[in-house]
Amino acid sequence: MDTISVGILGATAYTGLELARILTRHAGVAISFVSSRSYAGQTLSAVFPELSGLCDQTLLSLDEAGKRDVDCLFSCLPHAVSAQYCTPFLKKGTRVIDLSADFRVKDPAVYKKWYEVDVCDLDALRRAAFGLPERYRDQIRTAPLTANPGCYPTSIMLPLVPLLQKHTLSMIIADSKSGVSGAGRALKLSSHFVEANENVTAYSIGHTHRHVSEIEQELSAAAGKPTTITFSPHLIPMSRGILSTIYFQAPLSAADCTAIVSDAYAEEPFARVRPTGVLPRISDVRGTNFCDIGFTGGESGQPLIAVSVIDNLLKGASGQAVQNMNIMFGFDERAGLC
Amino acid sequence: MDTISVGILGATAYTGLELARILTRHAGVAISFVSSRSYAGQTLSAVFPELSGLCDQTLLSLDEAGKRDVDCLFSCLPHAVSAQYCTPFLKKGTRVIDLSADFRVKDPAVYKKWYEVDVCDLDALRRAAFGLPERYRDQIRTAPLTANPGCYPTSIMLPLVPLLQKHTLSMIIADSKSGVSGAGRALKLSSHFVEANENVTAYSIGHTHRHVSEIEQELSAAAGKPTTITFSPHLIPMSRGILSTIYFQAPLSAADCTAIVSDAYAEEPFARVRPTGVLPRISDVRGTNFCDIGFTGGESGQPLIAVSVIDNLLKGASGQAVQNMNIMFGFDERAGLC
Amino acid sequence: MDTISVGILGATAYTGLELARILTRHAGVAISFVSSRSYAGQTLSAVFPELSGLCDQTLLSLDEAGKRDVDCLFSCLPHAVSAQYCTPFLKKGTRVIDLSADFRVKDPAVYKKWYEVDVCDLDALRRAAFGLPERYRDQIRTAPLTANPGCYPTSIMLPLVPLLQKHTLSMIIADSKSGVSGAGRALKLSSHFVEANENVTAYSIGHTHRHVSEIEQELSAAAGKPTTITFSPHLIPMSRGILSTIYFQAPLSAADCTAIVSDAYAEEPFARVRPTGVLPRISDVRGTNFCDIGFTGGESGQPLIAVSVIDNLLKGASGQAVQNMNIMFGFDERAGLC
Amino acid sequence: MDTISVGILGATAYTGLELARILTRHAGVAISFVSSRSYAGQTLSAVFPELSGLCDQTLLSLDEAGKRDVDCLFSCLPHAVSAQYCTPFLKKGTRVIDLSADFRVKDPAVYKKWYEVDVCDLDALRRAAFGLPERYRDQIRTAPLTANPGCYPTSIMLPLVPLLQKHTLSMIIADSKSGVSGAGRALKLSSHFVEANENVTAYSIGHTHRHVSEIEQELSAAAGKPTTITFSPHLIPMSRGILSTIYFQAPLSAADCTAIVSDAYAEEPFARVRPTGVLPRISDVRGTNFCDIGFTGGESGQPLIAVSVIDNLLKGASGQAVQNMNIMFGFDERAGLC
Repeated sequence: MDTISVGILGATAYTGLELARILTRHAGVAISFVSSRSYAGQTLSAVFPELSGLCDQTLLSLDEAGKRDVDCLFSCLPHAVSAQYCTPFLKKGTRVIDLSADFRVKDPAVYKKWYEVDVCDLDALRRAAFGLPERYRDQIRTAPLTANPGCYPTSIMLPLVPLLQKHTLSMIIADSKSGVSGAGRALKLSSHFVEANENVTAYSIGHTHRHVSEIEQELSAAAGKPTTITFSPHLIPMSRGILSTIYFQAPLSAADCTAIVSDAYAEEPFARVRPTGVLPRISDVRGTNFCDIGFTGGESGQPLIAVSVIDNLLKGASGQAVQNMNIMFGFDERAGLC
Repeated sequence: MDTISVGILGATAYTGLELARILTRHAGVAISFVSSRSYAGQTLSAVFPELSGLCDQTLLSLDEAGKRDVDCLFSCLPHAVSAQYCTPFLKKGTRVIDLSADFRVKDPAVYKKWYEVDVCDLDALRRAAFGLPERYRDQIRTAPLTANPGCYPTSIMLPLVPLLQKHTLSMIIADSKSGVSGAGRALKLSSHFVEANENVTAYSIGHTHRHVSEIEQELSAAAGKPTTITFSPHLIPMSRGILSTIYFQAPLSAADCTAIVSDAYAEEPFARVRPTGVLPRISDVRGTNFCDIGFTGGESGQPLIAVSVIDNLLKGASGQAVQNMNIMFGFDERAGLC
Repeated sequence: MDTISVGILGATAYTGLELARILTRHAGVAISFVSSRSYAGQTLSAVFPELSGLCDQTLLSLDEAGKRDVDCLFSCLPHAVSAQYCTPFLKKGTRVIDLSADFRVKDPAVYKKWYEVDVCDLDALRRAAFGLPERYRDQIRTAPLTANPGCYPTSIMLPLVPLLQKHTLSMIIADSKSGVSGAGRALKLSSHFVEANENVTAYSIGHTHRHVSEIEQELSAAAGKPTTITFSPHLIPMSRGILSTIYFQAPLSAADCTAIVSDAYAEEPFARVRPTGVLPRISDVRGTNFCDIGFTGGESGQPLIAVSVIDNLLKGASGQAVQNMNIMFGFDERAGLC
Repeated sequence: MDTISVGILGATAYTGLELARILTRHAGVAISFVSSRSYAGQTLSAVFPELSGLCDQTLLSLDEAGKRDVDCLFSCLPHAVSAQYCTPFLKKGTRVIDLSADFRVKDPAVYKKWYEVDVCDLDALRRAAFGLPERYRDQIRTAPLTANPGCYPTSIMLPLVPLLQKHTLSMIIADSKSGVSGAGRALKLSSHFVEANENVTAYSIGHTHRHVSEIEQELSAAAGKPTTITFSPHLIPMSRGILSTIYFQAPLSAADCTAIVSDAYAEEPFARVRPTGVLPRISDVRGTNFCDIGFTGGESGQPLIAVSVIDNLLKGASGQAVQNMNIMFGFDERAGLC
């Protein structure tokens, strides 16, 4: 396998930092450029000293980056910004992995409802694979563009999709607990140490968080019929990780769920299912690309409960993006993802 | 109001430390003795240097403590141990506030099912008031014995009881997030800093945690009919605080819920209800005896959601115990509880 | 004792929040107004929901505040801003407690060197008491204006001043560890949760932090001769608290130091000295107005070591400000400071 | 390069977990066995679920482990235990990397003074290389036994050794801040989450911590004359990392120090030196095998200051152990150490 060249738009986001960390140790990849709207002209290692000696390239402006040619482009730009910078790369044949929400939602009306902007590039949207390898590996392999899923959705779709493909689930409630890096590196009071530490905050709970759009899209696709969810994210005083506690009704036992999902993921490199009644903790996946899943509950009319955990910056973002790159370019799917 | 004398059994628990902190600044109280099974013979301030100069008394053994006479006895001993040390005090007419589970569950069979021991003192159990002032203030005022509620139950009962007294609620799921002090000061791997930090752990979830017994007892009493709950506690990397996210179905809007509970607690010194859609955070109540409550959700068939927060060592334990003492002895209910 | 009226400038700083918390439970005080540059027109409890029901006053602009008359004014405004708003109150006879650096440094040239602005009100500066009660209680009692000390300086001056009054100390190095609230509520990357968590940062170390100016002023005054210090603050992943580890050479043993400082603070309500070799931890003083001190080292030519701890927002700021108010207005020095 | 077989004694320590993590992704290594005193008979992934699918081997007892043959043995056993289990492996020609203190201190009398036990195997001690690659790479390459340095000593020796080889340093004070994992996985009150969180604790400060023995040995060796240190470790509320702030007197400027140490480490894969006045933070090295170093201070008679940071479980323990293995077995020194 030859080495491929990659570029990163928005490299000074936390997802950009993680991408750079992974890609500098990936034997099949050479980082060709990194870019940033805010820090152009500085080196990436000046912004993130942890990359000193590993990635000391100067950050390009987005305009300069647009002139470069690479085999694979990653965009860590925010939604509504990302698509417009991805499109020119797509047009010149670059394969693109977009970590924003811009290409995740297939129905333009749904995208507009939740994100309050129009879809920027309808043609690209139609050709985009939804970047959940456990579900869409074949499409990803050949797609010009992969829309990397959101962090919360990844943690919720992975335990539910195999069940929904075979059984009817109802009354689905996902109560998610996330570390603060999920809110990004931008300064805001809710991410101030003194506000987030020794605290728990419920935000955008019920049916108001934008990730509802892609979660319901994918659950409905798996079920073959419209499927809704109640989704309640909470901010937890830790830097990284998501644990989702998912309640649902179904004509199944917890052991049935374990069997179905274990079977579905038997060959997956990054999904692990615990024995029934054993629940994963965030520390089981911290710093890795794994999603770990356990099932319990369901006795005496009680709801079934799935607990899933991911590192929000890895399987929830940059790790999964590299997993997708590995699939798209024929690398070992685990490459770089220790 | 004359000063009353109090004693504390199990003063070296975190609940004992909080009681000592509160009582040393309570103008109507003199601490007559403190006791400990493990540290008898040492001073309380040797165990907790924060109490230096505030409470330097020598810890008595439980046997020595049993010979003392006080107006009010607090027990911070664990369940199955506490009752046997409370009973002799009750027999000599001491008014007792027990922070363990030993007198909370009215049905001895239910207690035995969940705690796997027999009720120690059936007569005392019958005379015990359940120490939730917002619900049982009148009984508490004259009770010889008050059973201080559990921390999780307090956070769940306070938002739900006024609703259940007027309406039928169903499909109740309480997803609770607790700081590590809730697991006590005993050494265990799950409370080791490196295990708890940067982590979230779901434990005893579904219908398996002992607190289910008192929660269902009190929800059923409020509803006037058997009422069950799904209860899922999670361990969060912070020292103190509980946030409970409670999902339920009811023929009500979130605004209705806000109105009913605001009305019920209009005169309460330690319950605050936010406007509909505004949700409290743990930091709103940290270090205080408040329980703050907010309601949201309920649109388009989605469940209603209550979010409640308490400091697990104050409204969830020692603060509520002092509130109960204030009621029992005729002090201002806020005394000592800044 | 009659109730006094107080006003707070800059009430939406963390020091303002702490002041409001303390003063709402202080029996001798009525908060007459609160003000804010950024939040004028909102209520203080809208900014800090923890104050709901306790302090729901509407925040005044600084101009509106300037028209009010109170017995005692607290300023939580930043340096170079605070003095200009304190001066008009001083002119109409209001007694002022300023938490900024504006009146701490007696020599205008030194102030200008470290703060890079001119002293705003030289006359007020001359009349200001330095608000360290253990050192200047008598001046504070009658001063029109008290300059509340900085947090780091408080933790360093309290163990050293009694020693310097009797002995020569040299080679003084203070290595201080502070919680993030010491950096204030303003948004900055170093206070972002993800940046501060699981991290330690040395900043402004050696002889570059502005607090050097007041530390050296007070150490020199105690010694009766110019005394310099090396001062190295570090940011620690916790919300509150300072621990200073102070190394110095002196013709003394650690036991001598313990004896001298214990003797000096024998009657102090808020300074506690540990036995030689026993060192205080931040948890010993968290949430309190205490400064705890311990001494060790000094054998075989090794330096002596003092360890001191304070809560940076209480003894390091708002607690000490209320202690000063209690002295200035004849209250029990402990009032409000549980 | 053929694959080598390795065994781990004490694999359920945090250092064992880190070793297993690194070695399972090291292309040149096959883990032949893992062992544990407490968990023998369980799988390693049952103890550490993060290793599920990566290292599911059953833990051997130490006796069973002693019968196995491997190319390289790692011992994560505690001092005074480790040596007796390493010796039989050494006797049969296995190359050993010991992470305990048992072979670090060259003078048996010094070892006995600090560790209060006799050296177990004097012959092995004589043949042991001190496992600091930046200093002893050549000895390590051929040594039968490498004594992996302590975490604090690594952070202190790396900035000072190149200076001491050329200049006289005096008045050396190292004030170190460490995460809680440095205290190990054993249950103790000081590692309880509620005790360590929101706290800072100075312990074994001055000249009393056992690591003084190896620090002074190595500083003296570098200086060519007896050199003493004041060493003050502090426990910080984070899981991992050490930042050492080191004060010293020398006839040098900070820029001189930067130049000398940069020059010494110009070819080092895991030591990075910042420009003068730029200081590293723990986050710069978290999860890596780097030691980052910066110098400042030294003006106007002030002491010079070095700040160094490491991940205590990587460059401070298991990462450095693998770096040593790479040297001993001719692998790329960076292999496995992303």
